[in-house]
Amino acid sequence: MTELAKLSAADRATLTQELERRYDAFKAQGLKLDMTRGKPSAEQLELASKLTVALSAEDYKASDGTDARNYGGLDGLPEMKAIFAEMLGAPAAQVVVGGASSLQMMHDTVVRALLHGVPGSKEAWGKTKIKFICPSPGYDRHFAICEHHGIEMLVVGLNDDGPDMAEVERLVASDPAIRGMWCVPKYSNPTGTTYSAEVVRRLAAMKAAAPDFRLFWDNAYAVHDLYAETDALANVLTACAEAGNPDRAIVFGSTSKISFAGAGVAALASSPANIADVKKHSAIQTIGPDKMNQLRHVRFFKDYAGLVSHMKKHAELLRPKFEAVTEIFARDLGDQGVAAWTKPHGGYFVSLDTLDGCASEVVRLADVAGVKLTAAGATFPYGKDPRDRNIRIAPSMPPLAQVRAAMDVVTVCVLLASLRKLGI
Amino acid sequence: MTELAKLSAADRATLTQELERRYDAFKAQGLKLDMTRGKPSAEQLELASKLTVALSAEDYKASDGTDARNYGGLDGLPEMKAIFAEMLGAPAAQVVVGGASSLQMMHDTVVRALLHGVPGSKEAWGKTKIKFICPSPGYDRHFAICEHHGIEMLVVGLNDDGPDMAEVERLVASDPAIRGMWCVPKYSNPTGTTYSAEVVRRLAAMKAAAPDFRLFWDNAYAVHDLYAETDALANVLTACAEAGNPDRAIVFGSTSKISFAGAGVAALASSPANIADVKKHSAIQTIGPDKMNQLRHVRFFKDYAGLVSHMKKHAELLRPKFEAVTEIFARDLGDQGVAAWTKPHGGYFVSLDTLDGCASEVVRLADVAGVKLTAAGATFPYGKDPRDRNIRIAPSMPPLAQVRAAMDVVTVCVLLASLRKLGI
Repeated sequence: MTELAKLSAADRATLTQELERRYDAFKAQGLKLDMTRGKPSAEQLELASKLTVALSAEDYKASDGTDARNYGGLDGLPEMKAIFAEMLGAPAAQVVVGGASSLQMMHDTVVRALLHGVPGSKEAWGKTKIKFICPSPGYDRHFAICEHHGIEMLVVGLNDDGPDMAEVERLVASDPAIRGMWCVPKYSNPTGTTYSAEVVRRLAAMKAAAPDFRLFWDNAYAVHDLYAETDALANVLTACAEAGNPDRAIVFGSTSKISFAGAGVAALASSPANIADVKKHSAIQTIGPDKMNQLRHVRFFKDYAGLVSHMKKHAELLRPKFEAVTEIFARDLGDQGVAAWTKPHGGYFVSLDTLDGCASEVVRLADVAGVKLTAAGATFPYGKDPRDRNIRIAPSMPPLAQVRAAMDVVTVCVLLASLRKLGI
Repeated sequence: MTELAKLSAADRATLTQELERRYDAFKAQGLKLDMTRGKPSAEQLELASKLTVALSAEDYKASDGTDARNYGGLDGLPEMKAIFAEMLGAPAAQVVVGGASSLQMMHDTVVRALLHGVPGSKEAWGKTKIKFICPSPGYDRHFAICEHHGIEMLVVGLNDDGPDMAEVERLVASDPAIRGMWCVPKYSNPTGTTYSAEVVRRLAAMKAAAPDFRLFWDNAYAVHDLYAETDALANVLTACAEAGNPDRAIVFGSTSKISFAGAGVAALASSPANIADVKKHSAIQTIGPDKMNQLRHVRFFKDYAGLVSHMKKHAELLRPKFEAVTEIFARDLGDQGVAAWTKPHGGYFVSLDTLDGCASEVVRLADVAGVKLTAAGATFPYGKDPRDRNIRIAPSMPPLAQVRAAMDVVTVCVLLASLRKLGI
């Protein structure tokens, strides 16, 4: 096949007829396929089924003698902190373990800053109109936190090596209202981008007009590699400290996509000043997180090496699904000049770019044919993709056969929408 | 013995010498007794030891088919909601299950109101200086939330049937800055007071200058009875609805002092409008709480009746400790005219009132003799007991012999401080 745009009018009409026939055939199948959210599959959850029974009825004492059943332990059990220290790249003393959700830790960190500021703030962030930098496409739930709390979002492009740094540096240096920036620095949601060492260095070192500017460093996919050869991510806390901005980054992570998505353990890591601040606030919010679940995780994974090794089993389940997506995209869209997509080395998503102005139509067509995709625009602040071209494909949850079936539909939808856009 | 104040100067001097001799003997023992916090004892935690192993590796499906391991389930599993519906006195549809900490649900409810207001608010509570009514003595962590977030606290006295309602009604009707009131309506911390039906009715029906006034109804001790004959608490949600103030009360509870203090399940219940508001905000904060721990609790308790029946075992462990405290107080302080104390039917505390101006000195003396008590003043807003007389005794955690040993010390300290106050 040649590029769609180069086909003769007659050939385009023939192709359209053929695609419409295939599309109608999909519709007739009454498919019900859901490719919307980055949830682990039942098979992935099974990998950790022994987590549920990792503790005996008599096993509740942590290494420091803490009774994990009782109150207390605001920042986590020592052995759980040790695992997150390696995952997040900080000394254990600079780790705070939370409940089951790193999203909640990010949300609450933003809320505390709105009400009280952070170390270095002149006043609570909520006293004035503030802004966050949002590399896009990005994670919809990050953007939802900003939108919900009235934080203005500034879209910055995401290149192959991370955010468009010239633009980030220009904005952050010039506007003191910019207090934060969302970053998914490894296998970014949805593009799979890993920030280069140079991008990390520049983020750590750049001049900020606001003395209390913060990087919200959501290292959600720290150990979520699909291949033996993994993307390397520079340590942002070290980079910030070396650049003389030790309090700039707050790093978040969890075991949600390692053990159980809804019953894992989350943590954050940062500078001593930020950690002291987090503890001061969280001591008011809670007596402490669930330490039994921490102990359960420690017994199951044993240590960080055990956790990393566990991720290889996830990769074996996920890799065929990711490769099915990119293989079908290459097969059906490879020479058409109407789409581009990522081939990530890890994470949970494939990012598909259509021709400008086609993404919503593709999602609509797929939905009518029984394939639910993440809403077009969801990967941009306010749900508005300025070019209406990005679609997030989440292949993790459905069985492989369903992923293939869904992608067969999606490519037909992409071609149909493209032909209509080009004018058949 | 007769009242201390009626003793002759000579008798008082003799008694003081005798008490000082006993006090020095205690000091010489090198005691290390901690009566500070309302934590369950190891024996109480053992009662739920099978909770840890209540789930098999294959047990993760809720009654509605939800995989409790995966993401989702913002308001809780149906069977967990059913248990809290009975505990908190609301239809299951008006229950939101949270993580392990009801304190966190209360804190976050206050924070959401500060940033966004509640149904009926003209603006976010944080836009202006606001105030909460704080019946005192009360729970220090409630007061800490207010102090931390700059909410002014108005102290109102606590009578045998609940807060001084004439004063509450006068304040709430006259000051629109009063937006909230902390209530521990059953076996109140620390006095053991249960609000009468008439007090609940008046709280529900009273005129409020602020249209968005809220009762933060911390029913922490809903099923925490020491005796077969229990205090009855009227349903505040029903009372509010009947009084035409359906959105006035938000009820909180947890299994913290039922299963594991640090690894239980918390929930809130309120009107449909408040529940919709809570869900709207918490959908931004988290993908959902730990449903595996909910399922674990459901399997262990089976249903609400199972949970209530479990509490009888707690009562058997706690009752002797509470009775030891009040028995030693009666033995040593009964006729002295220098102290009054509560004899609660449930909850976690005995409240001791000394002569005015003696509480800090008693706590200091006890500390020197190796008995740690909750800091004097802790049961009042800003840590300031205006009469310096209230001491919270927490007998749950130490073994019975230690409770007795500690109380032997405390009564000597009370008598010594009283004699010095009266002028020996």
